Amino acid sequence: MASQSEMKLFTLNSHEPLAQEISDILDVPLGESSVVRFSDGEIQINIEESVRGDDIYVVQSTSQPVNEHVMELLIMVDALKRASPKTINVVIPYYGYARQDRKARSREPITAKLIANLLEKAGAARVITLDLHAPQIQGFFDIPVDQLMGIPILGQHYKEKNMENLVVVAPDTSGLTRVRKMANILNVPIAFIDKRRPEPNVPEVKNVVGSVKGKNVIIVDDMIDTAETVTQAADILKENGVNDIYACGTHAVLSDPAINKIDRSPIKELVITNSIFQPENKQLDKITTLSVAPLLADALVRVQNEHSVSELFD
Amino acid sequence: MASQSEMKLFTLNSHEPLAQEISDILDVPLGESSVVRFSDGEIQINIEESVRGDDIYVVQSTSQPVNEHVMELLIMVDALKRASPKTINVVIPYYGYARQDRKARSREPITAKLIANLLEKAGAARVITLDLHAPQIQGFFDIPVDQLMGIPILGQHYKEKNMENLVVVAPDTSGLTRVRKMANILNVPIAFIDKRRPEPNVPEVKNVVGSVKGKNVIIVDDMIDTAETVTQAADILKENGVNDIYACGTHAVLSDPAINKIDRSPIKELVITNSIFQPENKQLDKITTLSVAPLLADALVRVQNEHSVSELFD
Amino acid sequence: MASQSEMKLFTLNSHEPLAQEISDILDVPLGESSVVRFSDGEIQINIEESVRGDDIYVVQSTSQPVNEHVMELLIMVDALKRASPKTINVVIPYYGYARQDRKARSREPITAKLIANLLEKAGAARVITLDLHAPQIQGFFDIPVDQLMGIPILGQHYKEKNMENLVVVAPDTSGLTRVRKMANILNVPIAFIDKRRPEPNVPEVKNVVGSVKGKNVIIVDDMIDTAETVTQAADILKENGVNDIYACGTHAVLSDPAINKIDRSPIKELVITNSIFQPENKQLDKITTLSVAPLLADALVRVQNEHSVSELFD
Amino acid sequence: MASQSEMKLFTLNSHEPLAQEISDILDVPLGESSVVRFSDGEIQINIEESVRGDDIYVVQSTSQPVNEHVMELLIMVDALKRASPKTINVVIPYYGYARQDRKARSREPITAKLIANLLEKAGAARVITLDLHAPQIQGFFDIPVDQLMGIPILGQHYKEKNMENLVVVAPDTSGLTRVRKMANILNVPIAFIDKRRPEPNVPEVKNVVGSVKGKNVIIVDDMIDTAETVTQAADILKENGVNDIYACGTHAVLSDPAINKIDRSPIKELVITNSIFQPENKQLDKITTLSVAPLLADALVRVQNEHSVSELFD
Amino acid sequence: MASQSEMKLFTLNSHEPLAQEISDILDVPLGESSVVRFSDGEIQINIEESVRGDDIYVVQSTSQPVNEHVMELLIMVDALKRASPKTINVVIPYYGYARQDRKARSREPITAKLIANLLEKAGAARVITLDLHAPQIQGFFDIPVDQLMGIPILGQHYKEKNMENLVVVAPDTSGLTRVRKMANILNVPIAFIDKRRPEPNVPEVKNVVGSVKGKNVIIVDDMIDTAETVTQAADILKENGVNDIYACGTHAVLSDPAINKIDRSPIKELVITNSIFQPENKQLDKITTLSVAPLLADALVRVQNEHSVSELFD
Amino acid sequence: MASQSEMKLFTLNSHEPLAQEISDILDVPLGESSVVRFSDGEIQINIEESVRGDDIYVVQSTSQPVNEHVMELLIMVDALKRASPKTINVVIPYYGYARQDRKARSREPITAKLIANLLEKAGAARVITLDLHAPQIQGFFDIPVDQLMGIPILGQHYKEKNMENLVVVAPDTSGLTRVRKMANILNVPIAFIDKRRPEPNVPEVKNVVGSVKGKNVIIVDDMIDTAETVTQAADILKENGVNDIYACGTHAVLSDPAINKIDRSPIKELVITNSIFQPENKQLDKITTLSVAPLLADALVRVQNEHSVSELFD
Repeated sequence: MASQSEMKLFTLNSHEPLAQEISDILDVPLGESSVVRFSDGEIQINIEESVRGDDIYVVQSTSQPVNEHVMELLIMVDALKRASPKTINVVIPYYGYARQDRKARSREPITAKLIANLLEKAGAARVITLDLHAPQIQGFFDIPVDQLMGIPILGQHYKEKNMENLVVVAPDTSGLTRVRKMANILNVPIAFIDKRRPEPNVPEVKNVVGSVKGKNVIIVDDMIDTAETVTQAADILKENGVNDIYACGTHAVLSDPAINKIDRSPIKELVITNSIFQPENKQLDKITTLSVAPLLADALVRVQNEHSVSELFD
Repeated sequence: MASQSEMKLFTLNSHEPLAQEISDILDVPLGESSVVRFSDGEIQINIEESVRGDDIYVVQSTSQPVNEHVMELLIMVDALKRASPKTINVVIPYYGYARQDRKARSREPITAKLIANLLEKAGAARVITLDLHAPQIQGFFDIPVDQLMGIPILGQHYKEKNMENLVVVAPDTSGLTRVRKMANILNVPIAFIDKRRPEPNVPEVKNVVGSVKGKNVIIVDDMIDTAETVTQAADILKENGVNDIYACGTHAVLSDPAINKIDRSPIKELVITNSIFQPENKQLDKITTLSVAPLLADALVRVQNEHSVSELFD
Repeated sequence: MASQSEMKLFTLNSHEPLAQEISDILDVPLGESSVVRFSDGEIQINIEESVRGDDIYVVQSTSQPVNEHVMELLIMVDALKRASPKTINVVIPYYGYARQDRKARSREPITAKLIANLLEKAGAARVITLDLHAPQIQGFFDIPVDQLMGIPILGQHYKEKNMENLVVVAPDTSGLTRVRKMANILNVPIAFIDKRRPEPNVPEVKNVVGSVKGKNVIIVDDMIDTAETVTQAADILKENGVNDIYACGTHAVLSDPAINKIDRSPIKELVITNSIFQPENKQLDKITTLSVAPLLADALVRVQNEHSVSELFD
Repeated sequence: MASQSEMKLFTLNSHEPLAQEISDILDVPLGESSVVRFSDGEIQINIEESVRGDDIYVVQSTSQPVNEHVMELLIMVDALKRASPKTINVVIPYYGYARQDRKARSREPITAKLIANLLEKAGAARVITLDLHAPQIQGFFDIPVDQLMGIPILGQHYKEKNMENLVVVAPDTSGLTRVRKMANILNVPIAFIDKRRPEPNVPEVKNVVGSVKGKNVIIVDDMIDTAETVTQAADILKENGVNDIYACGTHAVLSDPAINKIDRSPIKELVITNSIFQPENKQLDKITTLSVAPLLADALVRVQNEHSVSELFD
Repeated sequence: MASQSEMKLFTLNSHEPLAQEISDILDVPLGESSVVRFSDGEIQINIEESVRGDDIYVVQSTSQPVNEHVMELLIMVDALKRASPKTINVVIPYYGYARQDRKARSREPITAKLIANLLEKAGAARVITLDLHAPQIQGFFDIPVDQLMGIPILGQHYKEKNMENLVVVAPDTSGLTRVRKMANILNVPIAFIDKRRPEPNVPEVKNVVGSVKGKNVIIVDDMIDTAETVTQAADILKENGVNDIYACGTHAVLSDPAINKIDRSPIKELVITNSIFQPENKQLDKITTLSVAPLLADALVRVQNEHSVSELFD
Repeated sequence: MASQSEMKLFTLNSHEPLAQEISDILDVPLGESSVVRFSDGEIQINIEESVRGDDIYVVQSTSQPVNEHVMELLIMVDALKRASPKTINVVIPYYGYARQDRKARSREPITAKLIANLLEKAGAARVITLDLHAPQIQGFFDIPVDQLMGIPILGQHYKEKNMENLVVVAPDTSGLTRVRKMANILNVPIAFIDKRRPEPNVPEVKNVVGSVKGKNVIIVDDMIDTAETVTQAADILKENGVNDIYACGTHAVLSDPAINKIDRSPIKELVITNSIFQPENKQLDKITTLSVAPLLADALVRVQNEHSVSELFD
C-alpha cells in the first residue's frame, strides 16, 4: 500500500542537475530551499516551504569540496529535523571519504564511519546510495541503507556495443569481486594487475596476472580519482600486447591531473556515471557519461511507495 | 591532587601559532600529527605518536574556512577516540556558527547545537572555549564546558591607558550585558545604538540612546565580522558629537570588507584578541591584538591538575 | 494533508482552565486521566482511555510548585510512552527554570537543559511553548520545538488603545531585543534602565538611558516574578519625569510579594497572559489578563494537520 | 589498591543528620554546597568547592516531599556533571516511588524506572541504596547498583533481645521472602495474613495462615507508610490469640495517620531505621530507630577503596 | 481508527506450531522467511518478501536452546530493521532468563535486563509477552511491553471442572501473589510450603503453612522447570493428608528429569499452556495443555488496530 | 606511564587453553569465575573475586557453538559492568559471524554489526581481535578495536622453511589483498582461482589466473571452514601442473567435513593458528598449529601499560 504522506525532494549544492533530472523523472518539483554562504564562510540553510508530516529526500553527493558538502548535508538534516517531517531520507549518489573505511595504520580515524555517525546523530532516517567503496560501509549505519549498483548500468553500455574478444581487468588486487560481476554480465574472462617490490629500495614491478595478449580489455574500477591507477593499468596492458583498451568507473572524482592523464593515455573510452557533478573543464571527448538518475528515481519511488528496492540491487 | 596521566597538546590547521604559544607557556611540546589534504579535497589525519592513556588537548578555532575546520576537528577526535586516550579535550578559542543558536525563523537549523552534537558524538569529553556568542551555548553540551572570558583582557588594556571621560557603547540592542561588564571594569556609564524603521519602505533610522556628546567612547562587541556594525556605530557616534572613538571585540572574524571599513572609519584603535588566526593581509596599524594564550594555558593547567577553573571565569 | 490519527488533549494539574479553554476552541474534549496524590506525596497517574495510535497533546505549565509540575509531566510522558500512542507532544505555556540557562558561575547546573534532557529521555517527541526566557533554549532539545510569541498579543492590546507620546522601556540591559520588537509594533522609541555600582560598598545607582521625560512609558519584560524589577523601574521612571506608566510581561509568576508591590507601584495597568494559572489572591484590578489559548489552539491544529506553524512565530 | 582520587561527600535537603553521621564515621567533612529556594519555588544549587577529578557521593533519600527531593538530586547531579568530577555516586537510603515498579493496570507509568532513567541521563555513575521494594529495581539501571540490606540490622536487634516462642509474620502475600530471611536469622517459623473477598460487594476477610496462637510475633515489612497494613495485621493477630506483638520495617515513611495508628495499636515496639528523616512530631516512645549510617559508611569506604561490597549484601 | 499499514506475521524456530495457530486465527499467513544453519553453527536469516512500511510481528519463545533462540530473534530484528518496516513487534510467549532478574549475589549479571537491552538495541519497538517471572521485568524496557496473563486461562479450566473442597497452594514463599489471583478466581483459601533449615548442616525442613488436611489442592507456579519444586510440594502435601493433588503452571520448561518426576508424583493432572513447544518425548497422559494462541491473537489484533490491550491484562 | 590499576584476566568456555597460555606468558593468573549451565540451557555466570577498579580482559573466541559463545560473552560483560571494574576489554581471537558483514541481498541482517552493537550495549570498552574477515568491521564499533595480524605469524613459518620456486595463490577473487601481503613477506609472485559460469545452467568453470605450472604453491585464506574452497583450489592447481601444494589460514573453523576433505586433498601441509580451540577429532598429522598467545599477550601488556599497539599491526 502506498504511503499517504507527501514526497518532497530537495537538492543541496553538490549536484543540482542530477537532482533536477530525478525531479523531472518523478514529476516531483524540487523543494524551495536555499544555501546562503556568508562572507565568513558560514552557511545558512533556509527551507522555504512546510515539510511537516512529509517524506523528505535530500540529494547530495559528498564530492569535492567534500567537507563543505558534508556540512551542508548535516545542517540541512538538522534544519529538517526541527521542522517535523515524517521521514528524512538522504540520497548520496557518491559517498565521500569511503576509502577511509578502516584503520590501515595505528591512530587513524575511520572517517567513513564518522560520517555515518554524524548523519544518524543529525537525524537522517535512511540512506540511499550507489556503489560504496566497500559494501561493509552499510554496516556503519544502524538505519536502513539502500545501496544501488552501478556495474549493471556500465555493463549494459558495453553489452550494447557487442565488443568481441574481451577481457575485464582489475587495476589492482582489491577490485576482483567488482570485476567478476562485470565479467558475469559480459560472459568473459578476467585478469588483474599485480604490483610487487622485489627488494626494498627497488622500483615496484607491475605484472598482468591472467591472459590478455591480443585481447580487447575493459579496466573496471569503482572510482576514478587522479586516474593514476587506471592509466598505469592501461600502460601495462599496452606493454602486454592488448588491442583496444576501455575503462569504466561509477564515480568520477577526476582530481587533478586526472583529465590530462586520461587524455594522454591509451584508453579509447572512459565510461563514467553522473554520480558526481563535472564542471566544463573536466569534459573530454573520450569520456562517456551515463546517468544514474533513472536508477535513483526508481529507488525513490519504491521507497516512497513501500515497495521492495531489492530488484535494483543487482 | 594532580592527575598522573600525561598531558598531550595537539594542533590542527586553523591556528598553529596560538597552539605553539600555549605549548611554549606550558612547556609541553605540540604532539606529532599531520593533516594531509588529498587532491580530491579529502583530508587524512595521522597521529604520529602514542596517545594511549593520555589526556589530550586539541586546539582548533572553527574559523574560516569553518566547514573545513569543523571536519578536521571531528576527524581528529574520531582518530583519537580509536587510539585509546584517557580523555579528549577540545580547545575552541573561537566557536564558529555560534550565531546560529536558535530558530529565528521557521525551518531553520540550530547549527551551533548541531556542532555540539557532532563533537559529543565523535567522542569529545570536554570543551574549553572563549566568549561564546550566547552563554546558553554551554547548555547545548552534556559534557563539561569551560567558557573563558575575553572582556577582562580587553578591559585591562583600557584600564592601563587611563583614558578619561569615557562611555562604553553597545552597537545594537543585543550586547548590553557585555557592555555592562566592560563598564563595570572601567567604572563608566553606558549607551547603545538603536535601529528603527519608522514606516515600511522608509530607511532605518539609527539613534544613540544614552548621553555621549563630548565623550570618548569604546564600542564593545563580541565579534567583529564584516565590521559593518562597529563602523556604522562609529559613524553615528561621530554624528552625535563624540570625541575619540575606540572599539574592541574578542573574536576578529574580519570577513571582507572588514579591513577596508575599519581603515576608513573614525575608529582610532580596534583591540582584538588572537582567538582567530589573522593572515598578513588582515593587519592594520590601528589594530591591536592581545593574546589569549596565557589565559588558555592557565585553564589547561587547571583542568589537567584538577584545580578549579572558576577563577578564570570573571 | 491532514494526519489520519486521532488528536487527544490531556491536562495535568498546573493549569486546567487553560487546557479547558483550548479544548473548547478545538472542540476536542479533555482526555480522561487523573493525578492521585498519596499521603506520602507520591503521585500516581492514571490514563483512563486508550491512546494507542493517537497523537497526544499534554498541557502543563511548569509553574509553581515547579518541581511537582515537572515530575507530573515526566511521569505522564512515561505512562503515555508505555501505552503506545503515535506521538507525545508536550505543551508548556510557561517553561519553568528557564532562567537557569547557562553556567553563570562555576559548578552551577544548567537546569533548563536538564529539564530538556529529562523530557526527551521520558519520551516527549515535540514541545510547544511560549516566549522562552532565552530563545537558545530551543537548542537544548533535539526534538522539534515550536516557540510561540507573546509580544504580538501584548502589542495588539496597546495598539487598540491608541496611546500617544509613548516610549517602550527595558527594565534592565538584558531585555533590549524584546523591547525593540514591541517598539516595532507600536512604532515608538525605546529606552532602558541601567544599574551601576560606582565603587565597591556604595549603593547601586540606577539611570534611565534614553529620553523619557514627559512621555508615557510601557515597561516590557518576559516574566514578572517578584515584580521587584518592574516596580523599581517604575519608580526610577517616575523620578525621571514620565507621565503614565504601563507594564507588561508574558509570564506572570507573581511570587510574593509581587501583588503588594504592583498594587503600591505607580504602574497604572499591568498586562499579562494566562500562561500561568493565577489563584484568587493574585488578582488585582490593575492587572489585565490576555488569553494565550487561541494562539496555542491554533498551533495545535497546525501541528496536528501538518501545516506550517511558522506564521505563528511572529 | 585504593583509588588515588579524593572522596567528597555532599548532602542535600532530605536527610542532613544521616549524611552528617556518615561524615563523622568516615571522618570526611560534608562538602560545601547550598540549595537555595527562590520565592517562585525554583531551586538553585551551588557547589562551593572544586570537585574536579574527585569521587563524589551525594546523600539524598527521595522521601517526602518526594518530587522536591528527586528534582534536588537531579539538579545536583547535573551541576556536578558540568564540574568535571571523576565519578558521581548517588546514595539513596530510601528510594521513593519504588512501589510503582510495574504496570499493574493499562496505561500506568513505571515511575521507579523513570527515576532510574532520569538519574542515568542526568549523569549518575553508580547508586548505593538500601532495601529496594523489589530487588528487580536494580535491573532498571545500567549503571552499578549496590543494594544494602536492612533485615540483618533489624534481625540483630531482635537477636540481642533473646525473645522466645516467636513467629515471624508477613502482613500480606507479597512479603514472604523478606519474612523468610528474618526467620532464618532468628531460626523461627513463619506465617502470613491472607486477604480474600468471598463474593463481590462483601467485605474482605482476613485470615492468618500459619500457626500463631499463644506465640509472640514480629510483623516484618519493608516500609511502614500509613501503617494501615501493619496495624491491621496486628489486630488480626490479636484476634487470633497471639501474645506480644512486635513490628519492624526498614523504611519508615509514616504518612498520616501512621503515628496515630501505631500509637493506638497493640504493637508493643516498632523497630525502624533512619533511612528517612523523622521530624519531632513523628516520634513515639514505642518506636525504636536503628541507624543505617555505619552500614552506608562501610559501603562508601569499600566503593572508594575498590574493595568488594558483597559482604554487606547479606 | 485502524492502522492502514499491513500486518505481517513471522515465526522463527522455537515454536512454529504456535505461530501457525495464531496465523490461522488471524487469517494472516506466516511470512516467507528462513533460518539457515551453516555447518559452523552460524545462522543466516533470509526474509523472502518485502516488509517495507509494514507492521511486523515476530513470534519466538526464548525457550531451550535459549541462547540459539535469543540470537535468532536478535538477528531477525536486525534484518527487519534494515528492511524498513513500519514497526517491529516481538511476541515472546515465554521470556527466557527471566529468573535472572536481580543481583542475588555480588558480581552477578541481570540477564533478563541484558536481554531487554539487546532487543531494544537490535531495533524492537514493542514486546508482547505472557506471565513474566516478575512483573518488574516490564520496567527493564523503555519500549511498550504488553504482558498477558496465563492465570485466567488456567483458572477457567478449573472453574469448568467444578472441583470442591479446594485449597490453592504456593510451592514456596515467592509465589503467594500469583496463588492469591488463582484463589480469587476459584474463591477458595490458600496455603504455602515453607522451607527452613533449623541449624547449619541439618537437612531443610518443609512445612505446609495453612490448612490443607482433607482438602483437594491445586499447586500453582509460573513455570515448571525440572519439576523439583512442584513434585516436592506434592509429596509434602500428601504427607499432610490432602486428598487429590492438581498442579498448574503457565510455562512448561520441563527440563530433565521433569517428565519422570511428574509421572511418578502423586499429582493427578498437570495443566500447562503451549507457551513453549513440547516435543513428543515430553508428553504425558496426565499433562493437559491449554493454548495461548487465542489470547495472543487477540492481543495482536488489538495492537494492530490500535485498540486497548488492557482488557486482556486480567 | 603504566596504569596503576590491576590487570585481571578471565576466560570463558570457548578456549580455555589459549587463555591459560596467555596467562602463563603474562604471569597473571586466570580470574576465578564459572559458567554454570542449568538443565534448561540457561547459563549463570559467577565472578568469584572482586573486580572493582580493575582492568578486566575477557578471552572468548566466538567460535562454534557461536550463539552460545556470544551469549556467554554478553552475559559476562553485563556481570562485569555491574561489578564496577575500571575497564572491560574483550579479547576475541576469532570473531564469529564476520562473514555477515554487509547486505549481500535484500532483507539480510548485518550480523557482524549486530554483534558489535550488542557488545557495546552490554558494556565492552575495547576489543582486541585477530584477522577480521574484512578490516572494515573495525568501523562497526565506536569503541577502540585493536586488530592483530596473523599473516606475519604464518609467513614467518614459511620463511623459516626456505621453500623455493613458490607462488602464493588466492582461492577466490576476494582474497587477493591478503595474498599480496603474504607474497610480500616471501617475495614471490601471486595467482588466483577464478570461477565463472559461461551460461546459465552450465557448471561453473574454474581457472587459475596467473602462472603456476611447475611451481610450489601456498594457498592463503583467512579462515578454513568446510575446507571446500581450499581443497577445490588444491585440485584445480594440481590439474594445472603445480608441484607441492601448501595451504594456510588464520582461523581454523574446520566444520564438517573439513577434516576428511583436507585429509584426502593433495595439500601437503595446512598451517593454522590456535585462534579457535580444536578438539581431538579435528587433529591431523598434516595440520600444523601456530600459537597466537604470544602475540595476544604482547598486545594485552601494551594496552595495560598504555604503550602503542601499532607495532603489532604489521
